[in-house]
Amino acid sequence: MAGTVQYGGSGGTPHFCAEIKSETLKGLVNIISAIVDEVKFTITPEGMTLKAVDAAHVAMIEINADSGAFESYSAEECEIGLDLDKIKGVLKLASGVDIIRMEQDADKGRLIFRVGNITRAMTILDTSSLNDPKVPELHLKSSIGISVDELKKGISAADAISDHITMRADSERFELSCEGDTDSVTLRVDKSNLVSLDADAEVCSMFPLDYFSNIVKAIPNGTVINIELDNDYPVKLLFGIAGQHVSVNYLLAPRIESE
Amino acid sequence: MAGTVQYGGSGGTPHFCAEIKSETLKGLVNIISAIVDEVKFTITPEGMTLKAVDAAHVAMIEINADSGAFESYSAEECEIGLDLDKIKGVLKLASGVDIIRMEQDADKGRLIFRVGNITRAMTILDTSSLNDPKVPELHLKSSIGISVDELKKGISAADAISDHITMRADSERFELSCEGDTDSVTLRVDKSNLVSLDADAEVCSMFPLDYFSNIVKAIPNGTVINIELDNDYPVKLLFGIAGQHVSVNYLLAPRIESE
Amino acid sequence: MAGTVQYGGSGGTPHFCAEIKSETLKGLVNIISAIVDEVKFTITPEGMTLKAVDAAHVAMIEINADSGAFESYSAEECEIGLDLDKIKGVLKLASGVDIIRMEQDADKGRLIFRVGNITRAMTILDTSSLNDPKVPELHLKSSIGISVDELKKGISAADAISDHITMRADSERFELSCEGDTDSVTLRVDKSNLVSLDADAEVCSMFPLDYFSNIVKAIPNGTVINIELDNDYPVKLLFGIAGQHVSVNYLLAPRIESE
Repeated sequence: MAGTVQYGGSGGTPHFCAEIKSETLKGLVNIISAIVDEVKFTITPEGMTLKAVDAAHVAMIEINADSGAFESYSAEECEIGLDLDKIKGVLKLASGVDIIRMEQDADKGRLIFRVGNITRAMTILDTSSLNDPKVPELHLKSSIGISVDELKKGISAADAISDHITMRADSERFELSCEGDTDSVTLRVDKSNLVSLDADAEVCSMFPLDYFSNIVKAIPNGTVINIELDNDYPVKLLFGIAGQHVSVNYLLAPRIESE
Repeated sequence: MAGTVQYGGSGGTPHFCAEIKSETLKGLVNIISAIVDEVKFTITPEGMTLKAVDAAHVAMIEINADSGAFESYSAEECEIGLDLDKIKGVLKLASGVDIIRMEQDADKGRLIFRVGNITRAMTILDTSSLNDPKVPELHLKSSIGISVDELKKGISAADAISDHITMRADSERFELSCEGDTDSVTLRVDKSNLVSLDADAEVCSMFPLDYFSNIVKAIPNGTVINIELDNDYPVKLLFGIAGQHVSVNYLLAPRIESE
Repeated sequence: MAGTVQYGGSGGTPHFCAEIKSETLKGLVNIISAIVDEVKFTITPEGMTLKAVDAAHVAMIEINADSGAFESYSAEECEIGLDLDKIKGVLKLASGVDIIRMEQDADKGRLIFRVGNITRAMTILDTSSLNDPKVPELHLKSSIGISVDELKKGISAADAISDHITMRADSERFELSCEGDTDSVTLRVDKSNLVSLDADAEVCSMFPLDYFSNIVKAIPNGTVINIELDNDYPVKLLFGIAGQHVSVNYLLAPRIESE
């Protein structure tokens, strides 16, 4: 039996060795950075997963990368905690098509990155303080398929008007809007310009603009997002990157106005 | 009789609705921003005018945009006060060829901008505090036609040498110069490289560099400026943008050195 | 006999007049700026030389530009002290192919730069406080010919890991490495990817990263550097710019760790 080898444990030889395209790793890191600075990857022979919640417990992310997201992949079960800023430093050394090799150096508790003729050794963080959040099961009433480019446009328009953004959908359209004391802005996308729209009755929730903006800006242009929306409920953003080998599930808590 | 409908007045229905190319609106806003942050547009059925003076009463601008500067134009007489930073926010949502639609929403006292599927409503400012300055009639001795690109080069060269810039012309050339305690710089443009030159005797005046720099940087590259210059007198910059449908008259007070 | 005419001396007519391509002057100024802000050029009929040491006496530079580095050159012996930031201001007025004319204006103690129709007069600094450092004769054990592009990659990788960088060479390879408390990075260039390698035994010295980074970033991409390296000794970087008409000799003191 293989057993779960926790890094830092006394027995066994943690093993993780993988190659990944620089642009795929960059895409992953950008998205995770939208909510945390340090992250714990849970490694299995089939791929890599992570769950993270931001410090204020407003946003939560769950990412599953299957081994097909990598150019090569070989792993036993283990956990690896990393500082995302350091990985960004490694990404600066590579162009988008470069292959980055990652290899666990069990003895020294370090992860070794290789890019061309550069070798970068990075301390693996103690993962005991990085708990996996419990991702709630949500059954939300409506679902909107939309290009992230539209959301980016809406966020840009909302700048400096209010700290909150409202998402609204009905059977005909999806709207992003932002209402300030004197000014307002609305992005309206009709059904014909959506990838899909499944909303029987009108649904509407309001969210903190900064959180929504951070995640939307981190998603590569052209990505189709599936938005699951309900009334005064968290919103769920579902999308894939790296040719759908990486699936992302992002949850953002609503701001509910007291009556 | 149509009568003048002041926005905010109790009777009548103020009406203004126009479409303009993003790049034309941007050109206008850049030039106005060189001296004020808030501006009152005076709207008539024939076009839009504005007069503004900066807080220190050193620079003054008068702009006339005929209806040909717009893609479509329909207006009764009214005044609309706007915050230029907010218009800049709208311009960020559009590319140069996009059409921006502006429409007065009389009931709510707001101006509605539409760019593609974005609707941005903006409070109309109370214009009672925004008085039209009286633009003086000046008869200046000499006149120089020059590309704004030359002036931009001169301003760049003057950087960090002094707070003032001197303009000088005679029958042979135009000069921009800047004299510091130890260093100096001169841009000399001979008659053959000017668009026109009409100066019988030498004329020379000195101006605050920051004001001159702000307006010159706001003028699109390639624009021909007509400079009217005299001895220790204000300088007048006359130029057109948007295919001459917008005419700009800018006045800058001289700095006169005490003997 | 020509005699040495010191600028500022009472007799004789200092004379210096030269034309240089903007990109050549920019290359020179970038390199000198890596260690000093003000510099004294020693001018002779054959060319221009300078020696400078940084304020902390950690780095030293010696530059020889023969008259072939200039488009035209005519000079008697003299010394000219200049503020490099001011020359950078002049460079901003020129594109890479523009010719910059420099001419000493003896009466006023200024150097006159001409770029197109711009004339920029700059005070010549008093050179009495700018002493020529004595450049030590060093006979270093090994020599490595390498493209500066590799060094730039190594510096980028070293960012935020440590304040020091180690250079190491043996008969097979050259290495740049940086060792922090928890992290490390190494750039390894095998002999086959070096321009030349002459190292019998292993040599290794450690240097302050900021100094090394400043000079390396100032060297144009594609330049081949000859690194002369020894154990716990200064390193010498030798390279040419402007088609080898300008030769640069840069010395950097090692950091020697106490046992």
